[in-house]
Amino acid sequence: MVQETVTMEGHLIDSDILRRAFARIVGEGGEFEIQEFRVGKTNAEPSFLSLVVKAQDPQVLDQILQELAYLGATADLGDARFGPAEADGILPDEFYSSSNFDTFVRVEGQWQAAQDQKMDSALVLREGVPCCVKQGLVKKGEPVALRGPGIRVRPPERSRDYSVFGFMSNDVSAEVNKGIAIGGTAREMKKARAAGERIVVVPGPAVVHSGGDAALARLVRAGWVDVLLTGNAFAVHDLEKAILKTSLGVCQLSGRAVEGGSRNHLFAINAVNRLGGIRQAVESGLVSSGVMYELVKRGTPFVLAASIRDDGPLRDVITDSVAAQKAYVEALRGAGMCLMLATALHSIAVGNLLPARVKTVCVDMTESVPVKLSNRGSMQAIGLVTDVGFFLERLEAELATS
Amino acid sequence: MVQETVTMEGHLIDSDILRRAFARIVGEGGEFEIQEFRVGKTNAEPSFLSLVVKAQDPQVLDQILQELAYLGATADLGDARFGPAEADGILPDEFYSSSNFDTFVRVEGQWQAAQDQKMDSALVLREGVPCCVKQGLVKKGEPVALRGPGIRVRPPERSRDYSVFGFMSNDVSAEVNKGIAIGGTAREMKKARAAGERIVVVPGPAVVHSGGDAALARLVRAGWVDVLLTGNAFAVHDLEKAILKTSLGVCQLSGRAVEGGSRNHLFAINAVNRLGGIRQAVESGLVSSGVMYELVKRGTPFVLAASIRDDGPLRDVITDSVAAQKAYVEALRGAGMCLMLATALHSIAVGNLLPARVKTVCVDMTESVPVKLSNRGSMQAIGLVTDVGFFLERLEAELATS
Amino acid sequence: MVQETVTMEGHLIDSDILRRAFARIVGEGGEFEIQEFRVGKTNAEPSFLSLVVKAQDPQVLDQILQELAYLGATADLGDARFGPAEADGILPDEFYSSSNFDTFVRVEGQWQAAQDQKMDSALVLREGVPCCVKQGLVKKGEPVALRGPGIRVRPPERSRDYSVFGFMSNDVSAEVNKGIAIGGTAREMKKARAAGERIVVVPGPAVVHSGGDAALARLVRAGWVDVLLTGNAFAVHDLEKAILKTSLGVCQLSGRAVEGGSRNHLFAINAVNRLGGIRQAVESGLVSSGVMYELVKRGTPFVLAASIRDDGPLRDVITDSVAAQKAYVEALRGAGMCLMLATALHSIAVGNLLPARVKTVCVDMTESVPVKLSNRGSMQAIGLVTDVGFFLERLEAELATS
Amino acid sequence: MVQETVTMEGHLIDSDILRRAFARIVGEGGEFEIQEFRVGKTNAEPSFLSLVVKAQDPQVLDQILQELAYLGATADLGDARFGPAEADGILPDEFYSSSNFDTFVRVEGQWQAAQDQKMDSALVLREGVPCCVKQGLVKKGEPVALRGPGIRVRPPERSRDYSVFGFMSNDVSAEVNKGIAIGGTAREMKKARAAGERIVVVPGPAVVHSGGDAALARLVRAGWVDVLLTGNAFAVHDLEKAILKTSLGVCQLSGRAVEGGSRNHLFAINAVNRLGGIRQAVESGLVSSGVMYELVKRGTPFVLAASIRDDGPLRDVITDSVAAQKAYVEALRGAGMCLMLATALHSIAVGNLLPARVKTVCVDMTESVPVKLSNRGSMQAIGLVTDVGFFLERLEAELATS
Repeated sequence: MVQETVTMEGHLIDSDILRRAFARIVGEGGEFEIQEFRVGKTNAEPSFLSLVVKAQDPQVLDQILQELAYLGATADLGDARFGPAEADGILPDEFYSSSNFDTFVRVEGQWQAAQDQKMDSALVLREGVPCCVKQGLVKKGEPVALRGPGIRVRPPERSRDYSVFGFMSNDVSAEVNKGIAIGGTAREMKKARAAGERIVVVPGPAVVHSGGDAALARLVRAGWVDVLLTGNAFAVHDLEKAILKTSLGVCQLSGRAVEGGSRNHLFAINAVNRLGGIRQAVESGLVSSGVMYELVKRGTPFVLAASIRDDGPLRDVITDSVAAQKAYVEALRGAGMCLMLATALHSIAVGNLLPARVKTVCVDMTESVPVKLSNRGSMQAIGLVTDVGFFLERLEAELATS
Repeated sequence: MVQETVTMEGHLIDSDILRRAFARIVGEGGEFEIQEFRVGKTNAEPSFLSLVVKAQDPQVLDQILQELAYLGATADLGDARFGPAEADGILPDEFYSSSNFDTFVRVEGQWQAAQDQKMDSALVLREGVPCCVKQGLVKKGEPVALRGPGIRVRPPERSRDYSVFGFMSNDVSAEVNKGIAIGGTAREMKKARAAGERIVVVPGPAVVHSGGDAALARLVRAGWVDVLLTGNAFAVHDLEKAILKTSLGVCQLSGRAVEGGSRNHLFAINAVNRLGGIRQAVESGLVSSGVMYELVKRGTPFVLAASIRDDGPLRDVITDSVAAQKAYVEALRGAGMCLMLATALHSIAVGNLLPARVKTVCVDMTESVPVKLSNRGSMQAIGLVTDVGFFLERLEAELATS
Repeated sequence: MVQETVTMEGHLIDSDILRRAFARIVGEGGEFEIQEFRVGKTNAEPSFLSLVVKAQDPQVLDQILQELAYLGATADLGDARFGPAEADGILPDEFYSSSNFDTFVRVEGQWQAAQDQKMDSALVLREGVPCCVKQGLVKKGEPVALRGPGIRVRPPERSRDYSVFGFMSNDVSAEVNKGIAIGGTAREMKKARAAGERIVVVPGPAVVHSGGDAALARLVRAGWVDVLLTGNAFAVHDLEKAILKTSLGVCQLSGRAVEGGSRNHLFAINAVNRLGGIRQAVESGLVSSGVMYELVKRGTPFVLAASIRDDGPLRDVITDSVAAQKAYVEALRGAGMCLMLATALHSIAVGNLLPARVKTVCVDMTESVPVKLSNRGSMQAIGLVTDVGFFLERLEAELATS
Repeated sequence: MVQETVTMEGHLIDSDILRRAFARIVGEGGEFEIQEFRVGKTNAEPSFLSLVVKAQDPQVLDQILQELAYLGATADLGDARFGPAEADGILPDEFYSSSNFDTFVRVEGQWQAAQDQKMDSALVLREGVPCCVKQGLVKKGEPVALRGPGIRVRPPERSRDYSVFGFMSNDVSAEVNKGIAIGGTAREMKKARAAGERIVVVPGPAVVHSGGDAALARLVRAGWVDVLLTGNAFAVHDLEKAILKTSLGVCQLSGRAVEGGSRNHLFAINAVNRLGGIRQAVESGLVSSGVMYELVKRGTPFVLAASIRDDGPLRDVITDSVAAQKAYVEALRGAGMCLMLATALHSIAVGNLLPARVKTVCVDMTESVPVKLSNRGSMQAIGLVTDVGFFLERLEAELATS
């Protein structure tokens, strides 16, 4: 049997790292022996583990060590190795693929924090600094970090402090008292605000369908939204409601689409595009209410990413997916908190771009969106199974009363 | 009270047109009186209705008549009116917005069938022929059909013939015997094949997760798929499975992702892109199994549309959403049948581009995708709530045995 | 070919009866010819149809005629035939099985309305009056109506009046504006109240989990609930919340169950049972808030039916399912409206016992409960896909402001 | 601050016990200090922890210690205390409420294992042996264990062995490869069979709807089912399919219910009840296929529990819920494995009665049933989100080929 010694440090138990590490070793067919284990004796103190990992052959051992490295285990303290990108968008085969955990790269004896931390990216050395870069954006010849020594991750530590983002994490259920969870979300938003962190909101069109748009507009006006990331559909629904008052008069009465009613959707796009875009539609007075209106009025940035199912689209929409992803990445800088509201597509897109340390709440009518998000690595997201309209009204009430 | 007489013709009862017409009139606050009603006396004969519609004021009457027009009612036999597009992508405000029902436009006394029928489009006269064109693709000055006379639709008629696409339509439930529904789907595929119509398949990544990819690959090889429309994710999952045999060895054993396992996803993209794309990856021998492999081998066309949540993407992916939509439209020409497999995004996208006469089956694990599809106007889609892997295995068995 | 002439009368189009009749004939392999069809010329006037039904052999024709009879078609005006029950709970094989549509039985030349209309029952002549009796409750020798002549049903007519219970019926979706649907529900409750009809509420335990219990308690106190039908679990959750204030203090803070927290559930049952039941628990002062408290204080009747998954159960629970069903039937007399709140089990149970004419709203987090209800014949139920806590708070606000 | 020292032993990390213990202490507002912690150095060795728990006041400390006791922590080694039941079904207020973890009670210095381990029960001393007894079944004067010293639980240990029941537990998702999970289930069934443990199957009516009944019948015939627990509906659906061949002929062709088709349901009940019950219906030749037929033929026991939504019910159904629960408890003795198939009601009922050590697979179309099961304490259940018909066909194929 071959073996190797690794060490781990941090809130190993609270963050469920220890259990996952043991599971990975045995799951891959290896064994382990604990040399030393010091549990943090108080809430504040980190734990330390020294572990001998054993396997039948070197390849299995390598596989295990690779997996443990993703959990923060360190086997080797040498510098990271780099290889040049073969062409634009083409990595060397031994590339290291990032997680959404904070990552450190050892360059010339110094541990450096990776910039723009996000999952499923290459680690590229740019001006001596390691950066998380999506593979399509890596340029030919750039030094790309390779798997092996000199890369460390720090899994997000679930604080032992009591909060909605502490021990509630990862519990997805329709059966909790939502009032309490919404209260906790409001408290975290205030904390993020106090800490100077940005609050990102990612709404889907169901926010408008369910009547939550009015509350969201008030949240924008009150300054609770620092950036809004969505697609064409949310914006068009919101603008249609703002522009077509008589048509909405009918809908408000009936709650039902009329035959041919989707024409209103196209009409709103046409009217806004004729003026040049959303900003101009607000300035011209065409649009005088709604979420998009409040964003423009307050100067809050928003990014609209296209999708294959769009009508129009609006002039403001970025139709190229690679460009849209870049715009999302820019917009997410400095994020401390993220609300994902009833959209599977954009929630997963944003989850792919967020470091795991960003506190994330995912509101949806079914368990399946938060479950998918968690399966795709955004394990920090708290799933809240409820009606998004209800969530927004309650959240706004919580934030207004304090 | 103002009033107007309209006539309707077709399978008014079987297709549920009559009930919806009456509902719209009363729903908008109008009244009606039937002048003449002849029900088709046999299965084959169409029905005819002459109806006086009344309302308190002309605007309400107009609204009712607009809605009835979408159901095929004709009030006025004059020519269609046209107005020029104000600019590229900007329609005159009175534009007619198409449905997915077959539409006829009266030009110089002649009724002409609209080309490329799809919902939520403008009707543009190109070389004297009315065409359904998405608003973003209309060019400045092109004549755009306006609301009013000279436009007729023919709602899809649910045949009184007995078939899975006759009376089963619109019933969404997890509680039907799926074997029967799958048998019916197979029969319709054979009919479409016999009629020279094309069969479109729209799979999501869950096809690969659920193990249905092997059956789908065999369907491609056997010639049951004429075109495949999907996004980056489905293709990458399929290619990853084809390329990374040892990694899949682990997964086949465990059924579980390893820590850092999404690296394999990026690795597959990298390996395929290095060679230039999917076709080259097949030709080089890198990819020698799977759905994409069979498509390339057989020469079956496929279109990959980008989304904001993509990794990579693959070189074959069309990253601009407007260009991708155009490519989907081209690919859908001649479609007689469409299978939507476990993807909300691409199902709705394709539903937006398909005429209602195309027989459509939407397979998903929950009622919500078929319900959404129907809400968005793709009412022809039969929802089948089951595991997509099971569906594909059974479907292939049905098609193989005959 | 054999043939027979039947007639139908009523709102045949609005109620979707005509389409279903045609579908059944063709679906069973028959054909039809329309002899006469008069559509009601105005909103108020019923339609009349005379139809020749044809089939290859007499058995198929019989099957078609049986099915059409369930849609209200009448082939033959003779008296109903009766056969004696063979033993307690054992019907003659030719028994007629009731639907939830109002049913009339011709006895000695007179058409008599069936009492206690509900689906899947025998029609038993008791003191000369036809009654819907569940098969287990039929006594030996009682005259049981047989299939064939002398039985007529009147399908519920969807009024052409505009209301949430008119044209909205049968649309199940999470994507409607719930505020409007809740407003419509409130209006119907006021109408039922004005008409002297009773309002039945059927809540599940999720009402308490989701925090909707406070609003429901206020609705009881304000007199909006005439009878409450549920099981052990809802009552225990409500009582636990009323009794264990300190424990709830913790939960209110945390929103989370404690280890061993289900002990509180048993404790509440024990405390209430010790006193003899819910009424005594209220009178003794042990329980001084909540839904059960308000029911007792106001004297509003409630029935608690046992299930195999109960703890306890409470002394007030009827543990025998046949006795519980009888108690439900008694309690439903005079019902004009029914609210089903987040419970699949009790919603379907009550749907089985309600005539289709009772206006029914089914609130649940997923489409699947309303879809199941509709599949089981309770087609009158409007599905409202939302958070039940939100529904109750909004409903109470709507009812309070008028 | 008050404090107390507790010790814990077992697979504390793998079983996620340590993380939960720390979370509970901090969640309740306490603090802790670790005196000693020895991690099992190899896969096989248990861990040991000695922990000082601190809190501001004695009540909070008590609450924390109570919660830790449910996780297996032991503070005090004295004998258990007992108090007499006040009346039939009425416990002393300080009663200990059991979990589904194996429990030991110290009686006169000896640790004794509780019999019939199940959650939410009283621990009653019967003939000197502690037994888990549902509160409604405790007799006046029987000694009931009280909260405090002398009670220990042993949380189920997730083995570090690699199996579908090891590390896969608690992951609920539609996105896993079901073939692998079904393969793992088959292996566990063989292990249970080899170990002489009983296999319990809990099917819902959707097993019949989805066409999985044929595979289940074959599993019964092949001896893979030791006891079947369900309700009236599953049995009636299965019997109706066996008896009404011509009616099924229609359904097999159409896949659709006919108008008035639920009469067949009542007809089957009537025909079986006339003969005296299911056994007699099989013996008489009326029923000659299906799941119930195979159960009778092989002599495999089954229990049918009534519910408020039953038709009939069948003579074999136990209509009293307390009696039915007792029959379920009897039937579950010796269970080593449990398959819950597409039934929320019976799955939760059985989960309430099973010790956590029984390997449990819960198959359903949505995540919500396994999530609910886990919320109610049946955390051992593995959720498998797939079509139950598919699951049964594949499972039978797996078991047949070995």
